[in-house]
Amino acid sequence: MNSVAVSPAQVLSQLQWRYAVKKFDPSKKIPADAWDVLEQSLILTPSSFGLQPWKFFVVNNPELRQELLANSWNQAQVVEASHLVVLAIKKDMGDAEVDRYIQDMSDKRNVPIDGLAGLNKMIKGFMANPDKGFTTDEWAIRQVYIAIGQFMTSAAMLGIDTCPMEGFNPAKYDEILGLTAQGYASVLVCPAGYRAADDKYAVMPKVRYDRSEVIGHI
Amino acid sequence: MNSVAVSPAQVLSQLQWRYAVKKFDPSKKIPADAWDVLEQSLILTPSSFGLQPWKFFVVNNPELRQELLANSWNQAQVVEASHLVVLAIKKDMGDAEVDRYIQDMSDKRNVPIDGLAGLNKMIKGFMANPDKGFTTDEWAIRQVYIAIGQFMTSAAMLGIDTCPMEGFNPAKYDEILGLTAQGYASVLVCPAGYRAADDKYAVMPKVRYDRSEVIGHI
Repeated sequence: MNSVAVSPAQVLSQLQWRYAVKKFDPSKKIPADAWDVLEQSLILTPSSFGLQPWKFFVVNNPELRQELLANSWNQAQVVEASHLVVLAIKKDMGDAEVDRYIQDMSDKRNVPIDGLAGLNKMIKGFMANPDKGFTTDEWAIRQVYIAIGQFMTSAAMLGIDTCPMEGFNPAKYDEILGLTAQGYASVLVCPAGYRAADDKYAVMPKVRYDRSEVIGHI
Repeated sequence: MNSVAVSPAQVLSQLQWRYAVKKFDPSKKIPADAWDVLEQSLILTPSSFGLQPWKFFVVNNPELRQELLANSWNQAQVVEASHLVVLAIKKDMGDAEVDRYIQDMSDKRNVPIDGLAGLNKMIKGFMANPDKGFTTDEWAIRQVYIAIGQFMTSAAMLGIDTCPMEGFNPAKYDEILGLTAQGYASVLVCPAGYRAADDKYAVMPKVRYDRSEVIGHI
C-alpha cells in the first residue's frame, strides 16, 4: 500500500481549526462515506499488544440520547450533534480475550497457532501481573484514550467537528445502554457533527502554553 | 478559520497505511516542515479542562538514545528512527498548575482573571477530589494517551511512520533524561521516521476484529 500524504500545511490548518464544540448545528448530518471512515478510525486504532480492549457504541436513538443528556451535566452536544459515540472498555480482560486475539491473528495472517504460543504466554503474563500496580481495566482505559485521539484527529482532517467529554455519569450510561450485561463500561463520550454558526467558542483564541514550555529538545 | 477537508478515501488510506514499525530506515530523516507540524500536533492536543498536564521530550542526542535503547527491551526503533519523542506527565498537578492555566487563559483570550474565578475553583475542586478514586497522575497519564493518538494519526496523514511503545523502563528514562528533577515522569515513547524497505511487518495483514464486534449501533 502506498502513502498519498497530506501536506504539512493542510494537516496543521485542520488541527488548528479543531476545537471542543459547545454548540452543534442539529440540522447538519455527517455524510455516510465520512462516517464510515470515522468508524474505521476507531477500528484501526493501535492498542497495547494489539488487543483492542474496547467497543464503540454509536447511539442513534433520539430517546436514548435524551436520557443520556440528563446524565451528562445537560451538555446539549449529546443530543444536538449529528452522531454520538460512547467509547467503552471490555472489563476484566484476561486469558479468554488473549486466546481470542491470538486465534484472530492466526486466522488473519494465516499462520499456525502453535507458532504464536510464545506471544500468547507473554501477553497473558502481562495481563495477570500488570507491572505498575494498576488494573487491566485501567490499562484498557488508557487504550481508549488513544482511540479518542485518533477519532478526533481523523474527524478534524475530514472537516468534522467533535467534543471530547469525560463529564458524564458512566454508571448511568452503562445502565441506559445496557453495557454492563455485555461486559463493557463507558469511559468517554464523543459527539461529532458540525459547529453551529453562533458557537462563540469557535472564535476564541486557543489556550495552549508556548512551544518552549511544552516541547523539550534533548 | 476555514476547513479545507481531506477526502474520506485519503484519510482511510493513510490510516490503513499506518502500522507499528519494527524496523526504521536510519538514513531517512523527517523534513523540518513536517516535524514542525508533528510538534504542533502535540501542543494542540485537547486535554481535560485544557490543562495540558504534560511535556514532550524530543531526544536528538545519539549517545542518550543509545542509553535509552538498553532500557527499552533493545527495541532498535529507539535509535534507528529519524526522531524520538518521550511523552511525559507533569507529576502531582495541583492548585499552582490550575492558577497558571487560568492566568494563561486570561492572557490569551484577553479576559479579566476575576471572571475566571468560578472555573478556577471548579477545576481545583476536581483536582483535589478526583471522583473515581484515581490519582491526578493517572488522570494526567490518560491525557497523554490522547496526545500519542493525535501524534500518530497526524503522522500517518503526513506519510510518516511511528511505533507507539509502552515497553520501556520509565524510571531509567526519567533518570537518563533528567525528568524527575523537573517534575515530569515518562509514560510513552514514540519513534517517528520512515519504515525500512525490508520491515516484514509492513506487509502483514492487520489484525483487527470485524466491525460488527467493535462497533455497536444503538
